[in-house]
Formats: sequence, C-alpha cells, structure tokens
Amino acid sequence: MSLKIWRANVSHRTVVTEPVPQSWERLAGRALIPRILLDEIPPTCDPLGPFNKLVFTPGLLVGHMLSSCDRISVGGKSPLTGGVKESNAGGTTGLKLVHLGIKALIIEGEPADEGWYVLHLSTAGGRFDPADDLAGLGVHEAAARLLERYGKDVAIALIGPAGEMRMTSAGIQNLDKDRVPSRIAARGGLGAVMGTKRLKAVVVDASGGSAPPLADPQLYQEAKKRYLKALLSHPQTKVYTDYGTSAVAVMCNGFGALPVRNFSLGQYDALDKINGDALRDTILARDGEGDTSHACMPGCIIRSSNCFPSPEGKAVVSPLEYETIGLVGSNLDIDSLDDIAMLNREMNDLGVDTIEMGAALGVAVEAGLMEFGDAQRAMELLQEVRQGTPLGRILGQGAATVGRVFGVRRVPVVKGQAISAYDPRAIKGTGVTYATSPQGADHTAGLTIRANVDHLDPKGQAELSRGAQIKMAAYDTLGACVFSSFGFALDLDAIRDLLKAQYGWDLGTGEDILDQLGRETLKLERAFNQAAGFTAADDRLPEWMTVEPLPPTNAVFDVPEEDLDGVFNW
Amino acid sequence: MSLKIWRANVSHRTVVTEPVPQSWERLAGRALIPRILLDEIPPTCDPLGPFNKLVFTPGLLVGHMLSSCDRISVGGKSPLTGGVKESNAGGTTGLKLVHLGIKALIIEGEPADEGWYVLHLSTAGGRFDPADDLAGLGVHEAAARLLERYGKDVAIALIGPAGEMRMTSAGIQNLDKDRVPSRIAARGGLGAVMGTKRLKAVVVDASGGSAPPLADPQLYQEAKKRYLKALLSHPQTKVYTDYGTSAVAVMCNGFGALPVRNFSLGQYDALDKINGDALRDTILARDGEGDTSHACMPGCIIRSSNCFPSPEGKAVVSPLEYETIGLVGSNLDIDSLDDIAMLNREMNDLGVDTIEMGAALGVAVEAGLMEFGDAQRAMELLQEVRQGTPLGRILGQGAATVGRVFGVRRVPVVKGQAISAYDPRAIKGTGVTYATSPQGADHTAGLTIRANVDHLDPKGQAELSRGAQIKMAAYDTLGACVFSSFGFALDLDAIRDLLKAQYGWDLGTGEDILDQLGRETLKLERAFNQAAGFTAADDRLPEWMTVEPLPPTNAVFDVPEEDLDGVFNW
Repeated sequence: MSLKIWRANVSHRTVVTEPVPQSWERLAGRALIPRILLDEIPPTCDPLGPFNKLVFTPGLLVGHMLSSCDRISVGGKSPLTGGVKESNAGGTTGLKLVHLGIKALIIEGEPADEGWYVLHLSTAGGRFDPADDLAGLGVHEAAARLLERYGKDVAIALIGPAGEMRMTSAGIQNLDKDRVPSRIAARGGLGAVMGTKRLKAVVVDASGGSAPPLADPQLYQEAKKRYLKALLSHPQTKVYTDYGTSAVAVMCNGFGALPVRNFSLGQYDALDKINGDALRDTILARDGEGDTSHACMPGCIIRSSNCFPSPEGKAVVSPLEYETIGLVGSNLDIDSLDDIAMLNREMNDLGVDTIEMGAALGVAVEAGLMEFGDAQRAMELLQEVRQGTPLGRILGQGAATVGRVFGVRRVPVVKGQAISAYDPRAIKGTGVTYATSPQGADHTAGLTIRANVDHLDPKGQAELSRGAQIKMAAYDTLGACVFSSFGFALDLDAIRDLLKAQYGWDLGTGEDILDQLGRETLKLERAFNQAAGFTAADDRLPEWMTVEPLPPTNAVFDVPEEDLDGVFNW
Repeated sequence: MSLKIWRANVSHRTVVTEPVPQSWERLAGRALIPRILLDEIPPTCDPLGPFNKLVFTPGLLVGHMLSSCDRISVGGKSPLTGGVKESNAGGTTGLKLVHLGIKALIIEGEPADEGWYVLHLSTAGGRFDPADDLAGLGVHEAAARLLERYGKDVAIALIGPAGEMRMTSAGIQNLDKDRVPSRIAARGGLGAVMGTKRLKAVVVDASGGSAPPLADPQLYQEAKKRYLKALLSHPQTKVYTDYGTSAVAVMCNGFGALPVRNFSLGQYDALDKINGDALRDTILARDGEGDTSHACMPGCIIRSSNCFPSPEGKAVVSPLEYETIGLVGSNLDIDSLDDIAMLNREMNDLGVDTIEMGAALGVAVEAGLMEFGDAQRAMELLQEVRQGTPLGRILGQGAATVGRVFGVRRVPVVKGQAISAYDPRAIKGTGVTYATSPQGADHTAGLTIRANVDHLDPKGQAELSRGAQIKMAAYDTLGACVFSSFGFALDLDAIRDLLKAQYGWDLGTGEDILDQLGRETLKLERAFNQAAGFTAADDRLPEWMTVEPLPPTNAVFDVPEEDLDGVFNW
C-alpha cells in the first residue's frame, strides 16, 4: 500500500484520497508543509481565512515505532507570524495516520455553517461527524468524550476553547500513548486555523491499517538495531530519562540566559525550587500517579517526559517541560512547581502554547495586569482566556498583541512569536536562530546551548545557528524527536540506511543526508515567507534586546545584522 | 531670516537650532518627512521606542496666509502601519512654526522620567515645561488650560488620553483659527509617538516672529492674485463653502461606495438623514453657534469646515466631515447627525482618528460588542477607551487590532490602517491608492472619485491612482489643502510662480511641478518603507474585499495584482 494524500474539504464535508504528486514524494513532515503551501495557497492570504490550509504530515521515518521517530508535523500559514508554520508533536497521531496510509492530510475550504465537527479517518475513509456538544470544552473533557465515542484505540488531534476562539496562541493537542491530550503542536497558532475550519478534533482510527511496507526489511532491522544501540550508549539519553528537559534549567541559568521576570534578568535566585532536581525529587517523594520518566510515543526508549503529581499523588500534568518552567516559572517569578504544574495543566486544557502564554503573562505584568509571583492571579487571567473576555482575548493572542494593546516595550517576540526559554542575549547562537528562522522565535528551530563556544561572543554565532537550523529542519522532516539525535549523531549512516530500507532511496551518507533534507526544508520555507512579504527586516530580534543589558552578564544582542542576513547565503 | 531645523531632545530636555542640511533644502511638509526618517532613524526601529522621531514640518507654501495653504505635516514611523507616516492638518500650527523660522521641528530621544511635559517654542527658543497637571485630560480641557497659561495667541498641537496611552488610533490635535483643538493630524498613530516622548503639547508662541522673506514680493502678489481668482471661479469652491466635505456623501452613495454596516453594503437607505443637505439644513435651522461655512486656517476663502450645533444652539463639534459621517454614521448604521456629532466630539476629545475609530467600532459590532445603530453603546465603548480598560485599549489600537483580537475577518484595513469612506470595490482607483500608498489606506493619498471613468471597471485604475497619488503628494508637500487644487488646477503656473517668488527656485511649469514634487515624495516614502521591510505583499487590499461582493453593485476588488505592482514603475 503506497501512501496517499487525503484531502478534507470543510465546505462540502468531503474527504478524498489522491496519489502523491511527484514533487512531494521525497518530502514529508516539516519539509512537505512549505511545498504544499507554495503549491496550493496564495502566500499573502489571510491565515484565518478560507484560503489557508491545515496540513498534518508525519515525518519520513514515522510508522514503525522506531524510538523517538513517530512525530507528527502540523502546518499552515501561521496566524501568529504571518509566515510558514510547522509545529510538531509526539503522541500517537503520526503513527496512526501512517497506518492509514496517509502521507499528508490537507484540510481546506470555508465551513458551510457554524457547526462544530469531528473529522473521522479510518480504513473506510473520512467523514465529518457533528460535534456541537464538544464546543467550548477543554481538551481533557473533550478527549474523554471522544475516546468514549470512538473507542480507546484512536489517535486524536484536537483544539481547546482557545482554538475555537481563533486565538493565535492556540495549538493542537494530541493524545500521548496513555491517551492524555498533552502532546501539543504548540507554536504559531495552528489551533486557531483548525478553529476557522470548525473542526474540534481529528480522530484517527487505524484499526485494519498497518505500518508502511519496507523496501528492505533486513536492512531496516539492522539499521534500527545500530540506532538503538547508539541511542542507549549516549550519556545524554540517561540524563533525559531521569530529568527530562528540565535538566537544561541549571545549565541555562549558569549561562545567565534563563528568562526571569519578563526577560529582565538571566539568573533566578529561586531556581533550586523549580529546577530538574527539584522536579525529580518532588515526583519521587510523592506516591501515586507521578512518573519521572514517561514515554510520549509508543516505542520511545528515552522517555524524557514525566508526569507531575499533586501532593496527594494525583496526576496534574504530563509533561512538565523546561520551556514551561522557564516561561511560566522563572519568567513570572513563580517559584512553586505545584503552581507551575497547575498553570501548565490549565494552559493544556485551553489548548494554548505554554511558551506563548507564559511570555504573554510576563508582558501582562508590565502592563499592570498582575504582579510577578502571583500564581493565583495568573490562574484568574487564564479564566479570562477561557471565558473569552476582552482581556482574555488579548492574552490569548500572545505576547506581541499584549504588548501592542497595552503599549509595552519589553516584548520578547520575533515575527510575532514568543522567544522561548533561552535569552538570546546570553546564548547568541540561539538568538540568531530566533531572528532568522522562517518559523519565528523558536528554540527547536536550532538550539545552540550545547555547543562548546563562548555564547556571549557575537562572532561565529551565525555559522553555529546555520548548522543547528539545518539539522533541526532535517530531524523535523524525518519526524524524529530532537533527542533521537543522541543516537543518530553517533551513527549518522543509520538515517541513510533507514530511509533506504523503507523507501529504496539513496540519499548520500552521514552529515550529507541531514544537510540535504535540512537545506531543502529551509529553502522552501524561506521561499514561502518571501512570497508572503518577509524580508531581512523581519529577521531581527526585538530592538530592546539590542540595547537593554541582561544581568548578570549585562550582555546585549550584538550579532551584526550582516551576519544575520548571511545565515542563509550558503 | 532663513528657516532652521529645531531639534528637541526629550532625554536631556534641550532644544537646539541647526542650519538646514543641503539635501533637505528643497523639501518640506510631506516630502521632508521620509528624508529625515531615512537620514536619522533605523527603518526597522520600534515606532514606540526611543529611536523613532516625531517631525512637524510646514509645507513649502506655508507662512503667508495664502488661502488653504498653511497646513502642517506631522510625521514619523507609524506605530499603526510600521511604515512612513505623514499626517497633515489645518489650523494655526504650520503658520506659527514658520513665523518662528522653523522648517522642521524634530522631537527625539527617550524620556528621562515619567513626567508629562509641554514643549514651548518662541523667539526665545525652546524649553520643556512640566505638565503633569494636564495628564489624562481631553484635548478640549487641556487646550483651554494651555491657552490660559500661555496666552490666546499661541498655536497648540496636543494629544488626548489616547495618545498618552500610546494607542495607535491617536492623532495630534491642532487649534483651528478659533482656538478649538479639532484640526487633527489624525492618521497613523502619531499621537502615540508623541505619547512615547511624554509630550502632552507643543505650544508655539510666534509673537515677535514673522512671515518668511520673499525673494520676489511683486511676483508673489501677482501669483497670489491669480490663484485666488482661479480658486473663486471654480464651481466646486462654492459647493465646499456651502456643504463642506459632506457634499460627497450623495455622490459616493450613488456609486454604491458608501461604507455601510462595516463595509457590507455600498448604499445607505437612511442617507437623507445624514447627508450634506441634512447637515446644512440642520445647522441653518438651529440658532446659536452653528456655522455652515467656517475656515480652519486664517485666510482661507473656501471655508469648507462647519460647526455643528446642538438643538439648543451650542457648538458640539467643528468640523463634522464626510469621512466621519461615513465611518461613524452609515458604517455603524447611526442615522442621526446629533449622535454622529456627539461621537465625533468625544473622539476629538480623546484625540483619536474618527476614521480609525469608526472602522474599529464597525469591526466591534461583528465581534458582538455592540449592535449597529446603537449610538449610546458606541459612546460607552468610547468611555472604555478613555478609561483604558482592556476593551478600550483594544479599540484604541484601531480596526486591525480589534479584528485580530476578536478573530473577525471583515476588517477594512491596508497596512494596518483603516480604509476611509470610499469602498474600494466600487471606486477602484481609490482602491489602488489604498493598496499601494506608502501611507496605508488613505483617501487623501489619492482620491479618484471625481475622475470621469467607470469606477467599477478595473482597467486603467492603476494609472488613475498613480496620477492622483503624485498630485496629492505634491499638494501635501506644498502644505496646500486638497481644495486649493480647485484654484491651482486652473492655473498651475501659479505654483511655479509662488515658489519662485518665495524661494527663488525655478521648478519647471504647470503639471511638471506637481509631478516633480509628488514623485520625489513618493520615491522617498517607498524607500523608507522598503528599508522597513515592506514589499509588494503589503500593497494589497484585504483578501475578503477581493471575494465578497458589495451590494448593490456586487463588485469585488479585481484590479490585477500586476497593475498594483506597476503603480510606481513609472
């Protein structure tokens, strides 16, 4: 069974399958999204209008429960940035889509009425089921009802109230392997795009489906074995198993790059209350549903996720990630893991990006809407979001809109998207990524914190970022979690062999493959953004970060603009 | 006495005078603004940050009380559009600045403290006076206090609460010849820029100053006489004397281009209650302070302004313009001149652009915040603006932000700035102007309604708009009111002779002068916008106007994009 394109039209409520166009064949995941957008939508279209499309496309390696390689890429024109958007997530959506033979699901058109629908996909094809009863529900309740309605074995991608209200901080939640709707394709407001299509959820019933055929099963098994061995042997794998992403908090703080009090400081005096050790110790100290090492996708051996329990041992949120600790914790001067977990769960339930919302709340403090450290007030503000009050609508649009509406200058965004938990003044390579990534500010587009360089020195950061951006674009195209790189880095030829074994392709060796996939992806994304009106003027950090020193290093962002403009002159 | 540049620095609270750089000498008014911005600010700077500058520059002909030719251009990088902004106004500011020998007043820097100040200019130089007592006051009360403080003969340019709150619908009000603060440099949010500089007002005391010297006084008198004769002989002069701009309402409605119910209709069934006849009849029927023909600048013989009285004969607002009737009247389905006048006065007092706020309220209706026709609710919403509530802050940012925050699709803006009272689907040449003007949507950048063409035919509209844009840029550079063109059109050489008589320049003849001035202005503006990151993708009308037919003509905007992109390929 060869993979197909499934096209769901919300105007006519039809789903048709089509062969894969030749020029799309070698693409998938992140790389396929700008290709589809360039081929099918006017680049200047209104992202929340009828001409935008929402694309779900599993990466190239998805479908075989290969550890950390079953991620789903979701994309479209971003209503947050106005440019191309790919946002990927773990969970089971990618795997199940591939098991139905779906290379890409393209959701298009303008809804014919004001009803809410579920798009149901199975071996029988696709159909639209009325779902007005789910309107307004948080993702936890909505997912529970959908699982009851459609069975326990479906994958679900769904939006919360934020996406329904077309808020540009809204992402798309996916079930993890334990059916918790917490694996969010968070960034860039794709939940709002799904909201404009009036889809509350996409439900994927893969029963009767199967993993895609392999061109060379023996080579596949051999390459898989090498990859898993390399992955298990990498020291970071164990660190992420034990601590998850929170391990990075101490490191980032050490560089003076932790976001603290709306990016006004780079080190946090209360970090020991919310860092990786505190998180692990708290989970271990509490009986019940807590878990320090939890897999988001079936087959993952890193299990960097966690489950944070209440003092009574009830699961509060899974996972509690470093980015949330940074943006919702230190950035708001909230130094209690219980408070951070409570806010995280609420944001998950609303279906919003915790990075965007954490940054928005930081700007809200400067606008006088709350005080730093006031978790209860933050929770109240999230209720405003849920209720869709004017204030909640402002917050739900993300940090840039909060800054715009209240006239705040210290707004941490690039291309309208919030900067994540690495202050670019003190990790300048990542600052270059924030500035120049076609995705807007996003550490997952090319984090440089692990490079053995002076992160405060502006020299060489553009090259560093370029390499990181190319690699990350490649991993996102493979559908591989960033942590799979612990394994692939030790055996890059495993990527070549896995692709060859699955598709029969010969894509070069080692670094070349990542280079090839990453560059093509970035080239397509840049082409879309250029057609949408982006120029070098958009590849800039916020002005205030170039003049306001960040204590304690007192660094400003001083990578020359020529360097920024040269990142993609390769 | 040769004209000078006055530079006011709000960081150090100093005002210095400088000679005019050679490359600025032949420029003034609208043309000088992009030149100064290109020379002095980073094009990508934050418009509400310390690197933006606010420029006041009288046009080339200003200073002699030549009828309709004493306008003041105010400019800077627009916080509404992100591009170059020139917004001009009548009143007395231009005249008095020239009488102090000021070619351009450049306000720059970052305020050293949170206090509010008045910038006072006189023959003794410039100084900053504390003005915290004026903070939060509407412009009527603030102007009254300033006149008391500084004497009855000063010119005043000031902001209301909206500008203080850095709202991007905020303009800068100027006193008219009767000391009413109603001549607003309305568009593009320059009031917010003034707010970031923490200036409540610029007060110009020209006592001891004088009109600039003339190179050839005899030629000046002769050319002036010819111009006035031509102006008086033009039939439109009498129409505008009797009806003001409201004369255009019936014409625009006839073309099906009146904004009705948030630009969803092009003709208004209640127009006869708010059109030019109704306005004139109402004013004439009421005793007291009403006036059908009122001059905004000393020396104006057209006197297109008016003063709208309450039923009791008290002055409510001056002027009540067609644009306000369109955006606040038919656009909101408010069919009472008394209601429109009340809202207009309130907007004036807040110091906001009535076009932007009228459009914002139209979008607010679609967001469910008010009903069409509900003037009381509109008034309540303006109180939210005054109080700076979250809802008020949203509205105060203008139509684009209201649409963004509430997820409304039918938002009438270009480059973030509201479309004025000519629906571009039915007056397509003006649509080309909206789309391509470096200023964002603005009829004063090139209105085409009087051209003898089929306004529904997309063909030839780009050429029509180009000619109109060039001419308007020239008139804005001269400091000449658009209605002066009634005179100049009949004797274009009068422009040549006036400039020659004043400056000794020889600028060609007839159309050439307008062409030369206009093209240079537009070229500079385009250069600034390009450096700020604008591309052809920004030169587009809102997508929905290209697909949603406008009853009763059922026109969509269908001027080809190639035509739009060719407007400045001259």
